[in-house]
Amino acid sequence: MSKKISIEKKVLSENDKLAMEIRAQLKKQQIPALNFVSSPGSGKTSLLEKTLAALSSELTIGMVAGDVQTENDANRLINAGGKFIKPIVTGGSCHLDAKMVSKVLPQIDLSKLDLFIIENVGNLVCPSSYDLGEDMKVVLVSVTEGDDKPLKYPGMFRRSSVMIINKIDMLELCDFDMETVRRNALQINGDLKFFEMSCRTGEGLDIWYDWLKSLVAQKKEHFLNV
Amino acid sequence: MSKKISIEKKVLSENDKLAMEIRAQLKKQQIPALNFVSSPGSGKTSLLEKTLAALSSELTIGMVAGDVQTENDANRLINAGGKFIKPIVTGGSCHLDAKMVSKVLPQIDLSKLDLFIIENVGNLVCPSSYDLGEDMKVVLVSVTEGDDKPLKYPGMFRRSSVMIINKIDMLELCDFDMETVRRNALQINGDLKFFEMSCRTGEGLDIWYDWLKSLVAQKKEHFLNV
Repeated sequence: MSKKISIEKKVLSENDKLAMEIRAQLKKQQIPALNFVSSPGSGKTSLLEKTLAALSSELTIGMVAGDVQTENDANRLINAGGKFIKPIVTGGSCHLDAKMVSKVLPQIDLSKLDLFIIENVGNLVCPSSYDLGEDMKVVLVSVTEGDDKPLKYPGMFRRSSVMIINKIDMLELCDFDMETVRRNALQINGDLKFFEMSCRTGEGLDIWYDWLKSLVAQKKEHFLNV
Repeated sequence: MSKKISIEKKVLSENDKLAMEIRAQLKKQQIPALNFVSSPGSGKTSLLEKTLAALSSELTIGMVAGDVQTENDANRLINAGGKFIKPIVTGGSCHLDAKMVSKVLPQIDLSKLDLFIIENVGNLVCPSSYDLGEDMKVVLVSVTEGDDKPLKYPGMFRRSSVMIINKIDMLELCDFDMETVRRNALQINGDLKFFEMSCRTGEGLDIWYDWLKSLVAQKKEHFLNV
């Protein structure tokens, strides 16, 4: 048992070391970095497609899209107008780790970017344990998944800074209460910032885009003031 | 690296040994066993609630409900009329393993059961690798998750025998094609048996109930003929 624990610790510390290196590279270029996490099918790729298309004239966004198998998500992001998109196929692994990200990072010209987004593997458990050098994790929950998810998968919500409640156009068809999901999430993490949206109808997306722009502006301002 | 692999192999073989013991216990009592797997929020618990309520006069069903945190699912199943329900809280682990199941199994009087169902942790990756002594894995996909899931998470669909397409009442609101999801799934596993249903409207549930009853009858018949 003690052997198992010590190996796990070693793996994590190697990951943390690489994540620190990624964070330093992004900081040097003043690029905020988000790590998108959720269950499979919560709408991470759809939101990133919309975001790329809507902000293309204002922000240059680099993205890494992780999947267990296929490069479909990365291809969707390229088709949505993304020019700095790289896939990571984990080949079975249930999460991205810092090693995978640092391997593809040299293929992206960071000096061109305003914002960097990592789309993690669809999994509400394992990706919570891996720092990828991001400034913050953004967790998505779609209303079709139920308002109990923060309580059942607390690790992910504890380690996220932003929670997106997606597919709100389907609210009437679901046994999902907006107050309950917020209360459940805040019980796990009182600092969570919320967004409600529907990628299908476009409701709530403008507020999301504004927040991303302010994030980029703040990072640049902070850099100038340091 | 080789050390990591050898430890993983050892863990798996210990799991397989325990899974064989569970399988032997269930076989002795002629109880078919299903392992329900899916993303979080695909509707595993809702379907099991409906199943318990609909079949209570015909079949006695034992269930083990796994969750990362909370016993909410097990409590829902008990409230739905389940008399042989046990929770497993993994406390962070992303899947059930045979050790967890064999620990709670003595708390269920198998001699009373016609059918045994394990509700795994919501995760479309990790639970695929763990044999829990079941006869077959049943994978659920809800139409809100997208028809690409079998290609992106092939391990789970390869190791399942039955695929349930759930929440079909929401089809019109989703970019989900029934033909495509079946084709994608069959590309991974040509032997998959499909069910389409909506737990909200009840569509397709009768066919599912009939199949469960035939599964129990077959197992008993097979036992008599051996």
